[in-house]
Amino acid sequence: MNRDHPFIAQCDKALADIRAAGRYRRFVALEKLADRFPYYKVTMEGRTQDILVWSSNDYLAMGTDPEVIEASIEAARTMGAGAGGTRNIAGSSPIHVALEAELAALHGKDAALLFTSGYVSNQATLTAILNSMPGWHVFSDAQNHNSMIVGIKGGKAATVHVFAHNDLADLEARLAAAPADAPKMIAFESVYSMDGDIAPIGAICDLADKYNAITYLDEVHAVGMYGPHGAGVSERDGVAHRLTIIEGTLAKAYGCHGGYIAGDASVIDYIRSVAAGFIFTTALPPPTVAAALASIRRLKVDQARRDTLFERANLLKSKFDQARLPRLPTESHIVPLMIGNATRATEVSMRLIREFGMYATPINYPTVPAGTERLRFTPGPKHTEAMMDQLVAALRHILSGETGTVAA
Amino acid sequence: MNRDHPFIAQCDKALADIRAAGRYRRFVALEKLADRFPYYKVTMEGRTQDILVWSSNDYLAMGTDPEVIEASIEAARTMGAGAGGTRNIAGSSPIHVALEAELAALHGKDAALLFTSGYVSNQATLTAILNSMPGWHVFSDAQNHNSMIVGIKGGKAATVHVFAHNDLADLEARLAAAPADAPKMIAFESVYSMDGDIAPIGAICDLADKYNAITYLDEVHAVGMYGPHGAGVSERDGVAHRLTIIEGTLAKAYGCHGGYIAGDASVIDYIRSVAAGFIFTTALPPPTVAAALASIRRLKVDQARRDTLFERANLLKSKFDQARLPRLPTESHIVPLMIGNATRATEVSMRLIREFGMYATPINYPTVPAGTERLRFTPGPKHTEAMMDQLVAALRHILSGETGTVAA
Repeated sequence: MNRDHPFIAQCDKALADIRAAGRYRRFVALEKLADRFPYYKVTMEGRTQDILVWSSNDYLAMGTDPEVIEASIEAARTMGAGAGGTRNIAGSSPIHVALEAELAALHGKDAALLFTSGYVSNQATLTAILNSMPGWHVFSDAQNHNSMIVGIKGGKAATVHVFAHNDLADLEARLAAAPADAPKMIAFESVYSMDGDIAPIGAICDLADKYNAITYLDEVHAVGMYGPHGAGVSERDGVAHRLTIIEGTLAKAYGCHGGYIAGDASVIDYIRSVAAGFIFTTALPPPTVAAALASIRRLKVDQARRDTLFERANLLKSKFDQARLPRLPTESHIVPLMIGNATRATEVSMRLIREFGMYATPINYPTVPAGTERLRFTPGPKHTEAMMDQLVAALRHILSGETGTVAA
Repeated sequence: MNRDHPFIAQCDKALADIRAAGRYRRFVALEKLADRFPYYKVTMEGRTQDILVWSSNDYLAMGTDPEVIEASIEAARTMGAGAGGTRNIAGSSPIHVALEAELAALHGKDAALLFTSGYVSNQATLTAILNSMPGWHVFSDAQNHNSMIVGIKGGKAATVHVFAHNDLADLEARLAAAPADAPKMIAFESVYSMDGDIAPIGAICDLADKYNAITYLDEVHAVGMYGPHGAGVSERDGVAHRLTIIEGTLAKAYGCHGGYIAGDASVIDYIRSVAAGFIFTTALPPPTVAAALASIRRLKVDQARRDTLFERANLLKSKFDQARLPRLPTESHIVPLMIGNATRATEVSMRLIREFGMYATPINYPTVPAGTERLRFTPGPKHTEAMMDQLVAALRHILSGETGTVAA
């Protein structure tokens, strides 16, 4: 290969810049211990130890649930490790069809469609919608996930309006200013994963009705956890029927892998028929599909697990507050601890693992804006009060020793 | 939701158009029988039967290989059903790291990077490269896969040159005409999956050297099958070291799921650090990663399985020729049978399944250009000569009865 190509030099330069900004990412290799989650085995600097992980998106520990694991194993045994084709080319199985039916029923929609990830479901669907006809105006929340932003940018002729985060007045002003007869879409999330706040879904649906916009709601950080059957904040708020498309993931609270959309029959069939990121890719592997099906069916009836999640999240929040640890106030199950610069966020995370055997991921740019770097804690049903006390003591030690943020 | 929105009407209209053009896709739900592959269980019109499938991309039957299944099961048991986070947020495990090392070694490259699919690896990587600096000129084979085209379109300021398929003279003319000092990339595939032909990789590398272009080679329909260790056509041809990036999949001959790139250390680290479709998505599930690792390690040393694949493909080709079935001549393991219109391709496929208990996917637009609709056969090590004779008899019956294509 041509090492004197300017791209090689550009890679080296960009990496040097990333390192200099303190945002070079080193992935910690964490081996999840299914029978002891949230403990993971880690080998660092020649030493192997068990680490207590606080940052998994396996929010309800369903990825290590015995029923879910058994479903994965059974499907591997009977159907093999992979789907072997796109959905159209020998890759659809009865359990793919059953999972889509389960997801449609979960959200009270006509139909659902699986994608290889939540990322792809957002990107492929939003791009397909915005390229369906000319003249689209799309209203996108300022804190929408990268996958939504990229999907929206894929709409070649759409006019994009970014409204202030969760700001109904700003959204309405922009809707009102757009041409009355233009096709409109409002794209937003329910639980925003980095700040942990929640959108006013019903009020956004009111605006959608008033200005005849379709709605696209990303519930990836809510499905499984919110609502009496785990169908998300839209279920909790009783407004699921008002949304055009609900998008979700199987990779977070459901503990598996893959993404999906649910909606009106003809909308889903249209996306199925035209979205490139759906058509031209291998279907999800049977073990993943079977595991997800088991997980959804379990969480539909397991309110106790959801109750425990919120009880634990609230307990951690109150312990952070008592210890005067600078957490971002959130309504959700997510507990962000503000650090404010990338080098320090990484350093706190490394000290936590090295000195205290606990892990919380530093969240740096580009995941969050520079200056708002943080550690993000996602306590779940398996995080005990004793673990929280250990964590708080460790954070107080690291943060007060370091900068006096904690007035101990 | 707002059913009077113009998008709903647009979906209905587009679906009606697709139906009218005979290209409405109905997915046949095929339940792979791991212990009897390539047989699948199908329930159609109230009847359940075993169907012999000719269209799987599980080319070497590795998805149902006992070692591969056992690896999936073991990982599910010990690590659970899902990764639980992005690679940066608690989703990297030692087996993700090991799989990347295995892939790098396979291709003789410094490093490799996993993606959630081959589709995403192409899209995310090509977009990231083309947005790395201004002035890119990219030379893209006319038959490149949709994922490459979409990835290239993601490069906002790149100049795109589409060269005639596998045409070195056209490629060179376009390279010569571009500004001498512009950063250049040639993006192409080794085995083109729909026509089954193979690129002159070495000669393209010669042009890359002459015009100082980097090279991006998609080997998704070659890895596992070509080369003495299954590292693809670039290994078979002894030119892997000349390529800047080799992209592959774990979802076809390796029988699992996911995609990857392999290349120079700083190139891979750069893509890892900037590509949105890599950063903002959940890591591949441990059962998939473990299964892929087992599959790659097995195929590195299983030349007999590769030999059987080509022996079977050649046997089917010769049987098609003897029966005067209009196959597209191919150098690869892929055997396309030309039909030439969407309605008929779908009908032949349906008759094959209903009357003869065999399945081959009709390949219609947008996967291939309108007018070149086909059935695509991918015989593998588990397709016996008796199965082929059954297939040929069925196709002769259907095709001669229908239109006299076969001069019986």
